[in-house]
Amino acid sequence: MKDFQVVGIGNALVDILSHVEDAFLAENGVEKGVMTLIDTARAAQLYDRMGPAREVSGGSAANTIAGLAALGARTAYVGKVRDDQLGAIFAHDIRAQGAHFATPPAPGDHPAETGRCLVMVTPDGERSMNTYLGVSELLAPADIDPALMARAEWIYLEGYRFDGPDSQEAFARAIAACKGAGGHVSITLSDPFCVERHRDAFLAMIRADVDLLFANEHELKALYRTDDLDVALRAVRADAALCACTVGPRGAIIVSGEDRLHVPTDPVRVVDATGAGDLFAAGFLHGLTTGRDLAACARMGCIAAAEVIGHVGARPEADLRGLIAAAGL
Amino acid sequence: MKDFQVVGIGNALVDILSHVEDAFLAENGVEKGVMTLIDTARAAQLYDRMGPAREVSGGSAANTIAGLAALGARTAYVGKVRDDQLGAIFAHDIRAQGAHFATPPAPGDHPAETGRCLVMVTPDGERSMNTYLGVSELLAPADIDPALMARAEWIYLEGYRFDGPDSQEAFARAIAACKGAGGHVSITLSDPFCVERHRDAFLAMIRADVDLLFANEHELKALYRTDDLDVALRAVRADAALCACTVGPRGAIIVSGEDRLHVPTDPVRVVDATGAGDLFAAGFLHGLTTGRDLAACARMGCIAAAEVIGHVGARPEADLRGLIAAAGL
Repeated sequence: MKDFQVVGIGNALVDILSHVEDAFLAENGVEKGVMTLIDTARAAQLYDRMGPAREVSGGSAANTIAGLAALGARTAYVGKVRDDQLGAIFAHDIRAQGAHFATPPAPGDHPAETGRCLVMVTPDGERSMNTYLGVSELLAPADIDPALMARAEWIYLEGYRFDGPDSQEAFARAIAACKGAGGHVSITLSDPFCVERHRDAFLAMIRADVDLLFANEHELKALYRTDDLDVALRAVRADAALCACTVGPRGAIIVSGEDRLHVPTDPVRVVDATGAGDLFAAGFLHGLTTGRDLAACARMGCIAAAEVIGHVGARPEADLRGLIAAAGL
Repeated sequence: MKDFQVVGIGNALVDILSHVEDAFLAENGVEKGVMTLIDTARAAQLYDRMGPAREVSGGSAANTIAGLAALGARTAYVGKVRDDQLGAIFAHDIRAQGAHFATPPAPGDHPAETGRCLVMVTPDGERSMNTYLGVSELLAPADIDPALMARAEWIYLEGYRFDGPDSQEAFARAIAACKGAGGHVSITLSDPFCVERHRDAFLAMIRADVDLLFANEHELKALYRTDDLDVALRAVRADAALCACTVGPRGAIIVSGEDRLHVPTDPVRVVDATGAGDLFAAGFLHGLTTGRDLAACARMGCIAAAEVIGHVGARPEADLRGLIAAAGL
């Protein structure tokens, strides 16, 4: 038994959550439903215009690791914060959730601050994210401890992290150490525009090293440059041993070799969609690392996702273990 | 018509909200249901032990001002933050709510940081608060702008602010400027232990200058050193022209000269009691500054309080104006 069931690597961010009307997005040129990278000046301008907000630790892979920890998994996280107040909040929250987190912070006088994501939630529950990466994009190969990666049954790589100068090298180092010790590699595509920015690099990594690919339907279609989900689902068979593709309120489709499995999900009122994909991955990986079949893994993913979209914020609030037990899983 | 209907003065704090079991309070020596002042070392120790949290701007009088702004009132706030990330969050949130806020922050290299309140919410919805005041306790007479006070129909003084070296002098300066320009003075007792720490100072100020006293039953009993609410309600007649005393799920009792009015409130599920008194004061002052009778003022207070205890966090999230209109007010 390895020390960690899942070690996640991603952008360490604090979410700044605010409710806005759709008109606010239009007036401020915010693209709805996706993640857009912004610089410091734009972050300041947009924050000035936003209403009162609340701060909750976020970051896509960090949300997944928090969800796994809430499910009782042995987890660790790797991501870069600065030695500042938001960095202390991020570090506290992920450790308090039960995850190991030891990435050295950038010094307090570093010109970039701890990264943050302005999450604008519209009345339909959709979230539109504008991210100021700050020091999170400076995660360097030196921050990847090969010994930690060797202690992981699975590593979980956040696709967003491709948006950084040394990201691919850091990921390569993590993959080599993990696989060299018999571990497995999973990755999430994160966002259709992120896929478009780094499509070739994603495909090369998936084909060479990835055992499990997470995506939603928009991301998978972007990866294979098609508008037809079926075409994308057929294409992914050749590239990834296992793919878990979420399809919004229709649940998830799991592709494993020639097998394709559609697992529906119960209807749920969407309060804030932030973290849905992250928590789906948490539930799925929890199932996988506890020896469950793929249908059970997908159901666990859907249950965890449903919990997080039922409230504001991308980290679980209810007892995920209890919810999964209540579903007979 | 004055520029501001209410100007609040208090501790500018960011709340760090976490759900805990009652056992956590016992194990960590946290007194339930009250506010305890803690130093930096204790704050760090307790935070280390707390579970994942979320950050929401708080501070008692700031919550009241945020509630008033949400109700459409013209408001301003005076309180001390540091030029740091939490200070920027506090300033953003109160301004974004619509309040004027221009207190100069302490410089970023000040040894004390922006103050924060560790709010531990137990399953019964009760909140137990441990406050590290940081720079908020350094609010000095120089931070009180007499011109601003003269522009206020009412000033609203937070009793907690008596816990600072220059607090009484700052309050005296605010009162003189406000009254000198024909304005009115309200104060909240804030907390029974705060009343015990500063009982004589509270009584002297109430007798000399206060037009409207806010308290809950525990605080009012502490002020008059009695276990009998009726004794306290009779005593306050001689000291304050008007007193609005909340009595938990039983609503509020308003004492105005010889008149005593009990205004009941509808039952509500308590998710997090943080901010109940603050929002009662917001609704009551909104009624008062819009010319409503005392019963309507108290009903507005109860409606605003009910909204804030129905969710986590001490700032309003629902449309308070709509709720008050829906109640026929």
